Amino acid sequence: MVSTRTAVAVLGAGPAGLTVANLLRRAGIGCVLLERESRAFIEQRPRAGFIEEWAVRGLERRGLGEQLVAKAPRHEKFEFRFAGQRHVFRYGDVTGQRHFVYPQQLLVTDLVAQYVDAGGEAVFEVSDVRLHDLTSDSPAVTFRADGGEHRIDCDFVAGCDGARGVSASYLPESAVRAHHDYGIGWLALLAEAPPSADGVLFGIHPRGFAAHMARTPTVTRFYLQTAPGETEADWPDERVWRELHARLAVPGGEIVEGKLFEKRILDMHNSVVEPMSHGRLHLAGESAHLVAPIAAKGMNLALHDAFLLTDALAAYYAGDPAPLAGYSAACLPLVWQYQEFSLWLSDIFHHTAAGAENPFLARVAEARMRRLLGSPAAAAAFAELYIGKNADF
Amino acid sequence: MVSTRTAVAVLGAGPAGLTVANLLRRAGIGCVLLERESRAFIEQRPRAGFIEEWAVRGLERRGLGEQLVAKAPRHEKFEFRFAGQRHVFRYGDVTGQRHFVYPQQLLVTDLVAQYVDAGGEAVFEVSDVRLHDLTSDSPAVTFRADGGEHRIDCDFVAGCDGARGVSASYLPESAVRAHHDYGIGWLALLAEAPPSADGVLFGIHPRGFAAHMARTPTVTRFYLQTAPGETEADWPDERVWRELHARLAVPGGEIVEGKLFEKRILDMHNSVVEPMSHGRLHLAGESAHLVAPIAAKGMNLALHDAFLLTDALAAYYAGDPAPLAGYSAACLPLVWQYQEFSLWLSDIFHHTAAGAENPFLARVAEARMRRLLGSPAAAAAFAELYIGKNADF
Repeated sequence: MVSTRTAVAVLGAGPAGLTVANLLRRAGIGCVLLERESRAFIEQRPRAGFIEEWAVRGLERRGLGEQLVAKAPRHEKFEFRFAGQRHVFRYGDVTGQRHFVYPQQLLVTDLVAQYVDAGGEAVFEVSDVRLHDLTSDSPAVTFRADGGEHRIDCDFVAGCDGARGVSASYLPESAVRAHHDYGIGWLALLAEAPPSADGVLFGIHPRGFAAHMARTPTVTRFYLQTAPGETEADWPDERVWRELHARLAVPGGEIVEGKLFEKRILDMHNSVVEPMSHGRLHLAGESAHLVAPIAAKGMNLALHDAFLLTDALAAYYAGDPAPLAGYSAACLPLVWQYQEFSLWLSDIFHHTAAGAENPFLARVAEARMRRLLGSPAAAAAFAELYIGKNADF
Repeated sequence: MVSTRTAVAVLGAGPAGLTVANLLRRAGIGCVLLERESRAFIEQRPRAGFIEEWAVRGLERRGLGEQLVAKAPRHEKFEFRFAGQRHVFRYGDVTGQRHFVYPQQLLVTDLVAQYVDAGGEAVFEVSDVRLHDLTSDSPAVTFRADGGEHRIDCDFVAGCDGARGVSASYLPESAVRAHHDYGIGWLALLAEAPPSADGVLFGIHPRGFAAHMARTPTVTRFYLQTAPGETEADWPDERVWRELHARLAVPGGEIVEGKLFEKRILDMHNSVVEPMSHGRLHLAGESAHLVAPIAAKGMNLALHDAFLLTDALAAYYAGDPAPLAGYSAACLPLVWQYQEFSLWLSDIFHHTAAGAENPFLARVAEARMRRLLGSPAAAAAFAELYIGKNADF
């Protein structure tokens, strides 16, 4: 057993954990970052891609957004395609804010480099991570790495190890574990194809939702709504393209095909644990709350948590424990606001496909979309949530 | 069999039918109004009570709103009561428009007087109403009244006989019958009690929704969310008051008791048939669409239909058949917008009570309410729908 001591043990090298680790290091607070996967793996893994402007500015102000701001294309509109028509929604015009399109693995690569290359302590490919004495003043983390047993004694554990990490399992029975299942799947696709449009397309179709997201000049992301229980095997390439054409193409707006190199069914569900803290353990990101990719909110919430947690830890070491005591309560309003938005938007996306068996829900969803497109007041309220304008801090 | 002939047979003397009959008469178009109940009965029956300003102005412009405008108190705010706190929402400030609080039986009384006393033809207490030859150029209505058989040959039938009338049953199999069940009930109460506040109170409570609506200085309406399957017998007066106090009272905002003289479980469901026309039959009001009293939309939609239908019939007799051909398509966007709004608002009202078994939906509903109270953009979008601002025509 190799024992060390640090101020904060950070579990997980995703956007939340890497942001926390970088910011603690810059604040002169000791930390060790532990990650289950290899550095090479997390620098390649495709995940989210849309960062809201307030989060970009938050990273930039903290010295972590230089590459992102220099390289990421901006998006400020999307297009509904419905009943053969195109309906462009310019949320950038309404809010003055934009999405920065930056695949998560690029942000992870930047943040790992900034942390590790500058001497930050990180251990990759750890296993058997366990937390100890979380309600004492001196918690600890034990794990296996490089074939040996390790122990880190610390003041705090930042649980940023995602939905499949161990952190959340250490919350007590009394924690509220809230869950919502959408009852459908999304097939997430990456194609070696140029974008078919210069931004995001949402196809609202009786056969199910579909989406197109321009990523790079040679790679495009697509999503297809799938029936419950379907697997990747149910979606040979020819079916994928047939459905993408049917659900997304309109006259003058065709879909460009390319080699499919990712094809993965996403479980469409949301969850939240609250409170997000237990003793000396504080969760951030998907360990605390999962949000289906419907509105691209997951990484943004992870960054929101990470900013609040590092600010709170910095305050704690400067002598003010109040922000850390209030950390969970500070995070949760935005978490629930984005959860609400995801459910609301999900109805627009998915209920038209329910029309055959439930015309009521289909018509209501279409009324919601039409109001968004027809009412300036409704458009303004939607746009603020879509880009997270008032999450700015 | 007594046979007569008229231009339009109007079925039902509710707000829709009475408005249609009055306006046809003023336009010089012949009509006969048929009603299942007695005149005395419909002048007493308590139903809806909130009329949106655009609808009031629509009646006024058509010479039917004088009493209403002279007598009805205006409402321009409501209050959420949640977790012991009061949150006032002033939609009048946001939209410049108000509700006119005028119990439906008063409007019905006004409209019957204007129609019948001025010589409009009406038959009350009709039964066995049947429609004939609706897809021909000369439809007919047969019915029993005063112990005899009657037949009216006409050009058109205006089916305004409500959700339990016969009109909707004459739509063909191919019509879409869309239905939504809220899975709960509301206990509708009238009390001989002065109002406990000067407007509407919405109690958002883990034990279920409750509402208070000031009606007159001596009569107040209350609603209580009930469990599926509960009947009036499950709600003795003492339980009613216990729940009203628990769900609606806050410190400094008590609930005043009084003798309960109406206690009626409302089936909380919505429905829409589309199209609203079949041959020479055109539906208006609750024969075509039912909306639970969640957002007080039912009577307003009935008036919207009635205005459009009489305008379309007037155009027809002036030589332009297009508006009548487009009548259903002209009505349905507002119908569906209000249906959507009712479902959206229902989640705020009712999901907090689901918290014990579904904390996710409860938190999402609370986030929705908090955003409404905290975001000017969200407040503006909500207020427009709540008062129906853009339904003006």
